[in-house]
Amino acid sequence: MISKKLFFEDANNEVSEEVVNGLQDRIKEEQKEIGFYSLPTDSNETMDKIYKFILSNNSVYKGKIKNLVILGIGGSSLGTKAIDTALKHTKNRNDIKLIFLENCDPNEINSSLKGISSKDSMFIMISKSGATIETTSLAKLVIYKFFDTLENPKLKKRFLIVTDEGSPLDKFGEELSLERFYIAPNVGGRFSVLSAVGLLPLAILGYDIRKLLLGASKLKKSFFDGNEREMVQKAAYLVQNFERYPINVLFSYSSSLEKLTAWYVQLWAESLGKINSSGQSVGLTPIGLIGSVDQHSFLQLVIEGPKNKTVTFIKVKDFKNSAKIPNVSIKNLEKTDFVNGLEFAQLLNSQCEATLETLIEKGVKVDLIELDTLNEESIGSLIFYFELLTAVAGVHFGINTYDQPGVESGKIKLFEKLNNKN
Amino acid sequence: MISKKLFFEDANNEVSEEVVNGLQDRIKEEQKEIGFYSLPTDSNETMDKIYKFILSNNSVYKGKIKNLVILGIGGSSLGTKAIDTALKHTKNRNDIKLIFLENCDPNEINSSLKGISSKDSMFIMISKSGATIETTSLAKLVIYKFFDTLENPKLKKRFLIVTDEGSPLDKFGEELSLERFYIAPNVGGRFSVLSAVGLLPLAILGYDIRKLLLGASKLKKSFFDGNEREMVQKAAYLVQNFERYPINVLFSYSSSLEKLTAWYVQLWAESLGKINSSGQSVGLTPIGLIGSVDQHSFLQLVIEGPKNKTVTFIKVKDFKNSAKIPNVSIKNLEKTDFVNGLEFAQLLNSQCEATLETLIEKGVKVDLIELDTLNEESIGSLIFYFELLTAVAGVHFGINTYDQPGVESGKIKLFEKLNNKN
Repeated sequence: MISKKLFFEDANNEVSEEVVNGLQDRIKEEQKEIGFYSLPTDSNETMDKIYKFILSNNSVYKGKIKNLVILGIGGSSLGTKAIDTALKHTKNRNDIKLIFLENCDPNEINSSLKGISSKDSMFIMISKSGATIETTSLAKLVIYKFFDTLENPKLKKRFLIVTDEGSPLDKFGEELSLERFYIAPNVGGRFSVLSAVGLLPLAILGYDIRKLLLGASKLKKSFFDGNEREMVQKAAYLVQNFERYPINVLFSYSSSLEKLTAWYVQLWAESLGKINSSGQSVGLTPIGLIGSVDQHSFLQLVIEGPKNKTVTFIKVKDFKNSAKIPNVSIKNLEKTDFVNGLEFAQLLNSQCEATLETLIEKGVKVDLIELDTLNEESIGSLIFYFELLTAVAGVHFGINTYDQPGVESGKIKLFEKLNNKN
Repeated sequence: MISKKLFFEDANNEVSEEVVNGLQDRIKEEQKEIGFYSLPTDSNETMDKIYKFILSNNSVYKGKIKNLVILGIGGSSLGTKAIDTALKHTKNRNDIKLIFLENCDPNEINSSLKGISSKDSMFIMISKSGATIETTSLAKLVIYKFFDTLENPKLKKRFLIVTDEGSPLDKFGEELSLERFYIAPNVGGRFSVLSAVGLLPLAILGYDIRKLLLGASKLKKSFFDGNEREMVQKAAYLVQNFERYPINVLFSYSSSLEKLTAWYVQLWAESLGKINSSGQSVGLTPIGLIGSVDQHSFLQLVIEGPKNKTVTFIKVKDFKNSAKIPNVSIKNLEKTDFVNGLEFAQLLNSQCEATLETLIEKGVKVDLIELDTLNEESIGSLIFYFELLTAVAGVHFGINTYDQPGVESGKIKLFEKLNNKN
């Protein structure tokens, strides 16, 4: 389903058996407190609620809904975007248009709202705290633009809420009798894609969320059975060498994985960029690249620039449905004949291999993740792989992986700035 | 039009008048050899040819063309994508759909080609060398899928070429009597957006390319008049401190600038990631962020993580057409009332200011670029600003800014891999 391989021996040499065992033990402790570990199994209940809801509103979803609008930002939108972008070419995906109201950029708002009406659209407002300023502002716009008043009975059918139980947003929904789905309090926003945050919209879009959870469960079981030793080695190696290699590049050889790399960037950056218990600023800077496009952009820097980067490749073994390069030789373009008759997928994967081998030759620390194909199960595994990798790195850094204290001062500054203006 | 401000005095202290003057002198020398410097004026001729071509094919562009398909990758597509994404909300943009055939990802190819026919589509194949393997492979697919044979007379009307004069692609086009537009040989791919590479598709999309060149000209004049001293200081400071601050973040507070940051990432990474004349690997790692979205992702790492980043903010002063946040207080959500009645643009720009001030307080080296508004002229200036900044940094690094020798070995490896398979 997904397989992983490290191409550098340092991880084995520098990370002892003892360290690996110690990290695994600490994760076993941590999972008692931290909610994301339980999502692959605990979300079964959420899933049942979601499917029951969809079934009882079946008439709404069969043909009537053209647009699914997600009001959410950061952890409330990135996971859904990642999975939908990875899988939208698959057969389960229905033809509902997915729209994100995320940024308060006026041009984006105008273009997102174009062609939407309350008749053919479903809105899901997602905010863990219930007070995310972008999301509440956009929700006010949507409510007054499409429903006129809070008392409009259509709101009940068209406006769903995902939040923490007891949050201001939960109370708001309760007041208006809106359908609400909860995030467990110990599940952080960026670790929440396998909760209702991701599962609700993904189920409405037609994806098999049971398979998504199954993929995550398998990876989790493999980890706790002690079979993900290389993942722990990799995380430990990256942490131990974070000053030498401050940057970790995720180089995905498929355009379908573009938003999944963005999801990984959030997870890695916001979880690990912290002041540790000794007061030291730690963290690793994530960069997402897409192959082969970024061979024509960023790769030159990786190869000839400062050797401050490790690179993780992702490759999809079977694209299922690949067009072929016509097997014709064109006068003056004969130089390109060596790819004639190949599937485009073969060209793409050969580019991945050629780049990976080049980087190994240049002495770059490289690892490879291979997906058998893009489907709910493999993406579920991949998501849980990155969540566990981040958790292990956080434990080894000696930080709180699950908070984000650094961004609070900016929020206070924003409040002061605008509160004084009004 | 665009204004720039450095918020750290080190640049002034560490970069002497002498260094600034020396760098400016070396740029004056370099511009005699390197083509991009002349584009703001030399492209007038290209522009005339483009407008003449569009006028003589007016019937084609008035209503008949629904899709403009760009076959190109890296420098052949990023610039057009950057400018179109920045300006597609403006009045000049007509309603032709812009499609990129760029990556050899099978899913992307399938979804891009959906709904295209030769009747309502125009194709532009762009490759400086004329032998880019992704582009020629996709061109073969397009030609045989939509035109059946090379002899199809429709090809002449629908298939344009942008390349170097005398390249294999030029000869291919000559053979078939296709319309060709040239890139000057001393203009590199990633510096080519103000040549036919960008101007041809952008003119077809309705943009005022004269204004784009005007914006670039103004910035160029300002630089050579000695009025861009701070830009030179900034470039020199970044180069002198590249080991202390290996990462430069471009934090654009507008979703419209998302692809422009991707264009900047290519420009900066591929131009500066080099082995210098003393054999040292140099370069700065660029990262593109979008505000306020990435406040919920990457910002935590910038604030609390290792202090290895400088940050350039981009802000748009006037969004022209911003929706307002409804001035209503909703029960349970009163905490968010402090933004009631504001334009979304005000909220976005206040977020930019709050984040910028926070980073200054945390001791991060920050600079700010402000655009009066998003239009052809301001984007032309911004593009030329980044090109000059990169050129100055390259000169100070003592490298060849305009080649990309590092990626050649991967291309050879790919050829060997696939040539042996066939």
